[in-house]
Amino acid sequence: MEEYLARIGPADEAAMAAATQRQQSLTKPAGSLGVLEDLSVRVAGMTGAVVPSPAVVTVFAADHGVHAQGVSPWPQEVTAAMLANFAAGGAAVNAFATNNRVDVRVVDVGVASDVDQLDIVHAKVRPGTRDLSVGPALTDDEVLAAVAVGFELADKLVLDGYRCLLTGDMGIANTTASAALIATFTGATADQVTGRGTGIDDATLAHKTAVVEAALVLHEVPATEPLKALAAYGGLEHAALAGYILGAAANKVPVILDGVIAGAAALVAQALHPSAVDYCVAGHRSAEPGHAVALKALGLQPLVDLDLRLGEGTGAVLAYPILCCAVRALAEMATFESAGIAAGEEA
Amino acid sequence: MEEYLARIGPADEAAMAAATQRQQSLTKPAGSLGVLEDLSVRVAGMTGAVVPSPAVVTVFAADHGVHAQGVSPWPQEVTAAMLANFAAGGAAVNAFATNNRVDVRVVDVGVASDVDQLDIVHAKVRPGTRDLSVGPALTDDEVLAAVAVGFELADKLVLDGYRCLLTGDMGIANTTASAALIATFTGATADQVTGRGTGIDDATLAHKTAVVEAALVLHEVPATEPLKALAAYGGLEHAALAGYILGAAANKVPVILDGVIAGAAALVAQALHPSAVDYCVAGHRSAEPGHAVALKALGLQPLVDLDLRLGEGTGAVLAYPILCCAVRALAEMATFESAGIAAGEEA
Repeated sequence: MEEYLARIGPADEAAMAAATQRQQSLTKPAGSLGVLEDLSVRVAGMTGAVVPSPAVVTVFAADHGVHAQGVSPWPQEVTAAMLANFAAGGAAVNAFATNNRVDVRVVDVGVASDVDQLDIVHAKVRPGTRDLSVGPALTDDEVLAAVAVGFELADKLVLDGYRCLLTGDMGIANTTASAALIATFTGATADQVTGRGTGIDDATLAHKTAVVEAALVLHEVPATEPLKALAAYGGLEHAALAGYILGAAANKVPVILDGVIAGAAALVAQALHPSAVDYCVAGHRSAEPGHAVALKALGLQPLVDLDLRLGEGTGAVLAYPILCCAVRALAEMATFESAGIAAGEEA
Repeated sequence: MEEYLARIGPADEAAMAAATQRQQSLTKPAGSLGVLEDLSVRVAGMTGAVVPSPAVVTVFAADHGVHAQGVSPWPQEVTAAMLANFAAGGAAVNAFATNNRVDVRVVDVGVASDVDQLDIVHAKVRPGTRDLSVGPALTDDEVLAAVAVGFELADKLVLDGYRCLLTGDMGIANTTASAALIATFTGATADQVTGRGTGIDDATLAHKTAVVEAALVLHEVPATEPLKALAAYGGLEHAALAGYILGAAANKVPVILDGVIAGAAALVAQALHPSAVDYCVAGHRSAEPGHAVALKALGLQPLVDLDLRLGEGTGAVLAYPILCCAVRALAEMATFESAGIAAGEEA
């Protein structure tokens, strides 16, 4: 862990200052590209003004012992079934990724059932977490092993040539663990961060909120203990995502966060190393209430806000072309001087 | 004009019903793709579940006589200079279009100066409009000629194989004409629809608002007279865009609207034929206040909301991959049945 964190440093202030100055000289009224101008400056600080291509979305999949508490209407077997669907190219993230020229990697970091026959990355730490409502979801060693899966995969992907890493996730009941993690790092209450996930009724929502509330009392993890929080609540995909985000930061490539699962993992990464957030881009704002809470604590503004609540990385993949457009505008546009255009008298 | 309007019909209800039904069967919780689900159903009604590719953004450029009233800090010559920049590939819309695989066409429909040497589409109706603050900006014949430029170009682009048309615009002072058009069709007041355009100070904004207010009183065009409104206020690019939108509808291909200029033109198209809006997709919400007013009257929800206020088609080009992802998810995703996955007990 120490070795990982030692590789992370803050964004390059000089590159950001140069990018800010160049933005002012481009053939457009100052500020007229809105959020994309700041975004291009942030990316310049991560990596220089290089179009972050090619890109890959990694879908970390795992199961959750708290599923036994009835927090989701979906059977746990859906996690494994969806992995087969990803591998066959039939899921939403596959359709989006094909369109946006993003490669897809699927990683079993802790699916409860046997998915050995699938053509995916096999890195199962254990078959699902323990039930967070009765005790710790993971041991300390299991947490470190799952973080290492994400960090080392990020290293490998950058070595393979990828210049933008996107987060994806799959795990029935993983919004429950996300809610507990977000409450831990933001101080929000269970009812502020617990939502309907992929679709539950009022009674199930009330029950799910009570499960999260009781778990927060049971484990009482302070915000300064991110690895303890992962051990208390899981999930294995959250731990792997935290490692993946840290790995992106260590390699100075942007990581586009998907929804609430990634937001929870990014809070863990931030608690482990505050500079990790310098390399994070919020792909979208999910309909899950905890996500807005997480984004606020991370200080990130989402690029897409279209009521998605699917996960898989769909929101991150949707945002990827927007990120590329922001970077390309900074890198490729003519300046007033090069185009021989008089700037406005006031702008 | 009658001939154009006779070619337009409403979206295909049966195709939309089939698309709605298919959405329910796809391997995701019902509703979890948010706004993209409705969008895919709308596109199915326009064109069937075909990915709308290839795409082209057409930048209609023209000048405005009302520029003489000091409503913009930019000299009028910037319109022509930016056309050269588009032709050379140095503008923001070029950078975005390269990234998102959208072709760019630039049309001179009424630039004040001579741009004959540029490699663009030459269809100048007249060199800029007359000053709308002292009399009609255009004659009835000039309006019809500019509408024809847009409609016939849409026909030609579809004949050339394009399956999605995006709107772009360039014209110093064109937010002033847009404000007058939006007020005409929505009943909003001048101060509700007049904004800072590409960047003006408080005093200029107050003056610009007064110019719009006085023009509305001077011309008094009712919302039922869209061609008269174009004659009163212009601009030539608004007229061409209205024709282009009608042409997309006549050819049953989606047209992605950019910002406030396109919104004003779409209100004209809607007044000419209410079904035209069935084929419109709102690319983004611009920072210009009249745009939100126009989108509300059109009943369209923007896909991107990132404080852009540049024009050129940048917002439409940013939205194009989102539209394609929505259509691809509908067309390419596995169903629960085909993937052999049990649906949730409740969804």
